[in-house]
Amino acid sequence: MEKNLQIVLASRPVGEVEESHFQLVSTIIPTPADGEVLVRNRWLSLDPYMRGRMSDAKSYAQPVAIGEVMVGGTAGEVVESKHPNFKPGDTVVGALGWQHFGVAKGAALSKVDTTAIPLSAYLGPVGMPGVTAWVGLIDICAPKSGDTVVVTAASGAVGSVVGQLAKLHGARAVGVAGGPEKCRYVVEELGFDACIDYKAGNLRKDLKAALPNGIDCLFENVGGEIFDSLLMRMNPFSRIALCGMIADYSAIDPYGMKNIRSILVNRIKMQGFIVSDRMELWPPALKELGQGVATGRIKYRETVADGLAAAPAAFMGMLKGKNFGKQLVKL
Amino acid sequence: MEKNLQIVLASRPVGEVEESHFQLVSTIIPTPADGEVLVRNRWLSLDPYMRGRMSDAKSYAQPVAIGEVMVGGTAGEVVESKHPNFKPGDTVVGALGWQHFGVAKGAALSKVDTTAIPLSAYLGPVGMPGVTAWVGLIDICAPKSGDTVVVTAASGAVGSVVGQLAKLHGARAVGVAGGPEKCRYVVEELGFDACIDYKAGNLRKDLKAALPNGIDCLFENVGGEIFDSLLMRMNPFSRIALCGMIADYSAIDPYGMKNIRSILVNRIKMQGFIVSDRMELWPPALKELGQGVATGRIKYRETVADGLAAAPAAFMGMLKGKNFGKQLVKL
Repeated sequence: MEKNLQIVLASRPVGEVEESHFQLVSTIIPTPADGEVLVRNRWLSLDPYMRGRMSDAKSYAQPVAIGEVMVGGTAGEVVESKHPNFKPGDTVVGALGWQHFGVAKGAALSKVDTTAIPLSAYLGPVGMPGVTAWVGLIDICAPKSGDTVVVTAASGAVGSVVGQLAKLHGARAVGVAGGPEKCRYVVEELGFDACIDYKAGNLRKDLKAALPNGIDCLFENVGGEIFDSLLMRMNPFSRIALCGMIADYSAIDPYGMKNIRSILVNRIKMQGFIVSDRMELWPPALKELGQGVATGRIKYRETVADGLAAAPAAFMGMLKGKNFGKQLVKL
Repeated sequence: MEKNLQIVLASRPVGEVEESHFQLVSTIIPTPADGEVLVRNRWLSLDPYMRGRMSDAKSYAQPVAIGEVMVGGTAGEVVESKHPNFKPGDTVVGALGWQHFGVAKGAALSKVDTTAIPLSAYLGPVGMPGVTAWVGLIDICAPKSGDTVVVTAASGAVGSVVGQLAKLHGARAVGVAGGPEKCRYVVEELGFDACIDYKAGNLRKDLKAALPNGIDCLFENVGGEIFDSLLMRMNPFSRIALCGMIADYSAIDPYGMKNIRSILVNRIKMQGFIVSDRMELWPPALKELGQGVATGRIKYRETVADGLAAAPAAFMGMLKGKNFGKQLVKL
């Protein structure tokens, strides 16, 4: 009889995540109760926020308990349904975590149409990362035509959508990414106007050269020295959508930001946000993102790890920027 | 014949301001042209923003040129008028700078009524500092009844009004100030609910104890380590009105802020602002502030330096927190 493979949190990292913080376990497949649905997950999404859930530091969400299945977005097929809206074979997305099989209430699952959009894209540009890009860019930054939008981690699942949406809305899109290959992709394949390789060793000089008109909207995913350097290029009355600070997630001693005064001098509005606070924006966001992906105007790239056992290494690599585009695990 | 005494900028400070950066000069009294008014200044306001104007670093305003009269808010009497709205003896406020006599267009002066409000208060709680407090608190922070409002430099010209307005709007007001005398004043005379003395040596512990319900609104005037420590106490969905960072103004190497991640985790809105950007808010602000001062519900305190020659030392002292309440110079 088939078993349910799971990855549970074995211990809490202090500083960098290691394999030993995870444990692969085999359990029985759960049975759905009334109103619930059993799903065979086919895709697991790996995202930076998961690093926060491994820690018990105060945050916006409860940490994963030791011994509990790691949290995560998933896409798969219904195996058994005790909810009237679902039947076996339906393709659904949910948050069933790092495991092959999961049970959820019907209300916690969304049926998705894979006719024009591949199932995995519902974990990327037409899912949480895409909506994150939409909320930060459209709702918080609200760029006007001709504005300069800068996004860090520009080749990533969120950043790649930010720049493409910015272009679709008439703005100039400038990315910051690590390495010439990612920068080439961002400009040549995604259509950004420019990309700064922060690994090239001339960050401040390169930012100055690539941003002759300053920054009107900064979509910040990285934090640390890159964010601090970008603050020096902000325009008066510009906006910062603070979405992530991945550079700090594994740091025991966070980077000391020296240019916060720019927020005062330039009268900047900075807004920290979490996409799950803004559920009312998901329908308009998903509509625009779905159309963009279905028509090919929003492109995306995936890095796929093969099998659940490969998830920890893929997650650790992602935290160091080793993935290229959306990091997924094929289950 | 009477001469016009002025203080001009002699050289630009790097780091701390010294007497040698100023020069006292004696010139002829200017003559007003058509549409202009000659004013004998009686009060000069000293404010932290002036440190920025002494520097030629990129900022929101042009720096004072070397040899030019230092900028500053003033209150005084009309001596000669070539503008139909003003006549000799009228009391007016304007921005005539560090000098005894100044000429301004009529549109750049406001006639003020000293029946119920002393002239000097138009440079304090019923002037730019008061409106600054109002804009940051009422427009940016928008505290609800029961919210905890924290203000740094709480005994100062801006901070003292922030806390009193917060109380008038039903919030809990907590100040941060330097030394037991200022903290006693903030609580016992201004009616704040609590005050933390940042010089007492237990800043983080004292903040934690004084803020059992966290911070819903932070009105930040100081920056540096105090601001960084306050970030650790912010509540989800709280607001920061970033008004000043006086701790950094004379620093060659600014403090490195380590807790910016709180803005992300707590989904904080932080807005840098300059009161002169929000001219549409001056009338409602001045109405509430004028009524508050005239009825005694808004209290204030002044530190008065005697004579223009004393202005540089008073200004240097203010940058180090040696003043108590609004720093003025009697001319």
